[in-house]
Amino acid sequence: MASLTLPRHTGIFSGSLPTRPTLRYAAPAKVRMSLSESGPSIAVVGVTGAVGQEFLSVLSDRDFPYRSIKMLASKRSAGRRLTFEGNEYVVEELTAESFGGVDIALFSAGGSISKEFGPIAADKGTIVVDNSSAFRMDEKVPLVIPEVNPEAMHGIKLGTGKGALIANPNCSTIICLMAATPLHRHAKVLRMVVSTYQAASGAGAAAMEELEQQTREVLEGRPPTCKIFKQQYAFNIFSHNASVLSNGYNEEEMKMVKETRKIWNDKDVKVTATCIRVPVMRAHAESVNLQFESPLHEDTARDILKNAPGVVVIDDRKANHFPTPLEVSNKDDVAVGRIRQDLSQDGNKGLDIFVCGDQIRKGAALNAVQIAEMLL
Amino acid sequence: MASLTLPRHTGIFSGSLPTRPTLRYAAPAKVRMSLSESGPSIAVVGVTGAVGQEFLSVLSDRDFPYRSIKMLASKRSAGRRLTFEGNEYVVEELTAESFGGVDIALFSAGGSISKEFGPIAADKGTIVVDNSSAFRMDEKVPLVIPEVNPEAMHGIKLGTGKGALIANPNCSTIICLMAATPLHRHAKVLRMVVSTYQAASGAGAAAMEELEQQTREVLEGRPPTCKIFKQQYAFNIFSHNASVLSNGYNEEEMKMVKETRKIWNDKDVKVTATCIRVPVMRAHAESVNLQFESPLHEDTARDILKNAPGVVVIDDRKANHFPTPLEVSNKDDVAVGRIRQDLSQDGNKGLDIFVCGDQIRKGAALNAVQIAEMLL
Repeated sequence: MASLTLPRHTGIFSGSLPTRPTLRYAAPAKVRMSLSESGPSIAVVGVTGAVGQEFLSVLSDRDFPYRSIKMLASKRSAGRRLTFEGNEYVVEELTAESFGGVDIALFSAGGSISKEFGPIAADKGTIVVDNSSAFRMDEKVPLVIPEVNPEAMHGIKLGTGKGALIANPNCSTIICLMAATPLHRHAKVLRMVVSTYQAASGAGAAAMEELEQQTREVLEGRPPTCKIFKQQYAFNIFSHNASVLSNGYNEEEMKMVKETRKIWNDKDVKVTATCIRVPVMRAHAESVNLQFESPLHEDTARDILKNAPGVVVIDDRKANHFPTPLEVSNKDDVAVGRIRQDLSQDGNKGLDIFVCGDQIRKGAALNAVQIAEMLL
Repeated sequence: MASLTLPRHTGIFSGSLPTRPTLRYAAPAKVRMSLSESGPSIAVVGVTGAVGQEFLSVLSDRDFPYRSIKMLASKRSAGRRLTFEGNEYVVEELTAESFGGVDIALFSAGGSISKEFGPIAADKGTIVVDNSSAFRMDEKVPLVIPEVNPEAMHGIKLGTGKGALIANPNCSTIICLMAATPLHRHAKVLRMVVSTYQAASGAGAAAMEELEQQTREVLEGRPPTCKIFKQQYAFNIFSHNASVLSNGYNEEEMKMVKETRKIWNDKDVKVTATCIRVPVMRAHAESVNLQFESPLHEDTARDILKNAPGVVVIDDRKANHFPTPLEVSNKDDVAVGRIRQDLSQDGNKGLDIFVCGDQIRKGAALNAVQIAEMLL
């Protein structure tokens, strides 16, 4: 049984870079006080993955109260030790028996694990917050961004003994809607054209490692190692690696189309998206063109966004300072800038905006923990 | 007087990578036969820059006939020697006296050099093909993509003794319109929403060097050197470095808006653009959403693009193989893929496409040389 160790080259991306998920709880900086008898018992499924590690980071950062915490992962990782908030835990293998007495389970271990174990956990009375796409479009499962549609969770509460499934939306959808929703509430979005600039992290920690490795190889004049992605990622961009459907959209793009309709409870909102991977570590960017029912001036939009929860406006035209993936890495807030009246739409009924958000944090772990907080 | 030498790390980007402009004419692989008494006398202004070097490459590749060729650059580069098609040349300082007897001058030395010396050359009877933005929106100057609007050059011919200015469009505009124009001719584009993924090369050879240097530094855990760009470019993306205007658009975006109208001779076409730099060496990508007056099925669009000059379709949904900047680097053709009916527009009146083109080649040098070919 080995302790979890930091991945290779951990120091490299500190400071100016894209910190990758490091198993940072091996040596915590401080002991937090969130272990409390009155808190729920929680479980983290997929705890050794990029998002799993970020679940722990966010739980700790936000002093999430818990009576106990179970660290669950695949058989391969079972037995490894990790220290969280000053206490040592042994990673346990995920089985159908894992959920007895667990109040809240945060899942991020891929769609097939969620499909298999999510309903088992819910049947045992656990409220599952699932980061996969397994249940997102299931009409009985709420799909929630706490700042956007908290009402979708109506009726799901701790202490009732009743389990439930709650789905965490796709990262690109969350980041887009954090910025678009406050504007939508004001002027009603009729149509949205999105182009994404997506980070390696969305494909997991191994993809982040591959981007780093490839970049070293290319700089050394060697052929790039392609395992996670089938083509060179270093110094290149490519259409998102999700499967392409018969309508020509890839699955990532269709998530944005369909999840937006569900989250906004608006089956008529028109969305198109083009999802592209860029050689960036852990934060997504999105160029979003909005078409509104009512006029919305860019100054009003900027004020609305400045007051929106979880959103920060970075929009300094003079200094050419706008959001970048690097600037939002490891941050909770989604940053919005390049807020301007769309010249191609009349009557102030269009806006262009540029949005950046940390894919692992608000795009996944933070949003899930915020959902869990609403249960308390 | 030093010979031009290959830049540091030249070998690094061969094969799998983003070849930067190397002063490749120091040791040509073969002697071409395009030096001929019946050809025009030509001059290359800014010959030591990224585009200047590519001018030479393209002239040679296309066997462009010339009686003589003058290599012009700033005082700083004057006196350097370079070998082109087996003959050695000394780089001369650009002055007002440089253009006597020059039939065609290819300019790529920045807007202020073009503004100063372009009219001087034209007055002396030289036909100037200018790669800067200096004259693009001058209504007396044609703005030309040979595959798109050759008719704009009507009346400009060699051998008349009359000089002229012809403007080469912005690289992003050229790459976008190479794909959009054949569709526009078929179904009339009413509105276009563009998001770009722009390479370092658009900011010159020094920017490409900076991206490489920064990437090395970040991988070594050192702070990135920011000289050309004011922020980290390695493993990051940012809003285009062009100045932002009072309407919130940056100059690069407004070039796309205005140049499209001029090239298509359609003052009503509506264009919006968001221009973003990505850490890629020499080819741009663009996500383009099109809104048409008439219905256009994606299959028809694909056929139209397959038959369009200078365009190659890479659109294999099953293999998830679509255009990438790397795949089009050092290539003449603009690649188009992700051709699909836009779900957010009714009646088959919308399409999404993804376009990639070599910024230095079709985005600059090739297009200019094609313009020069039309003069022959």
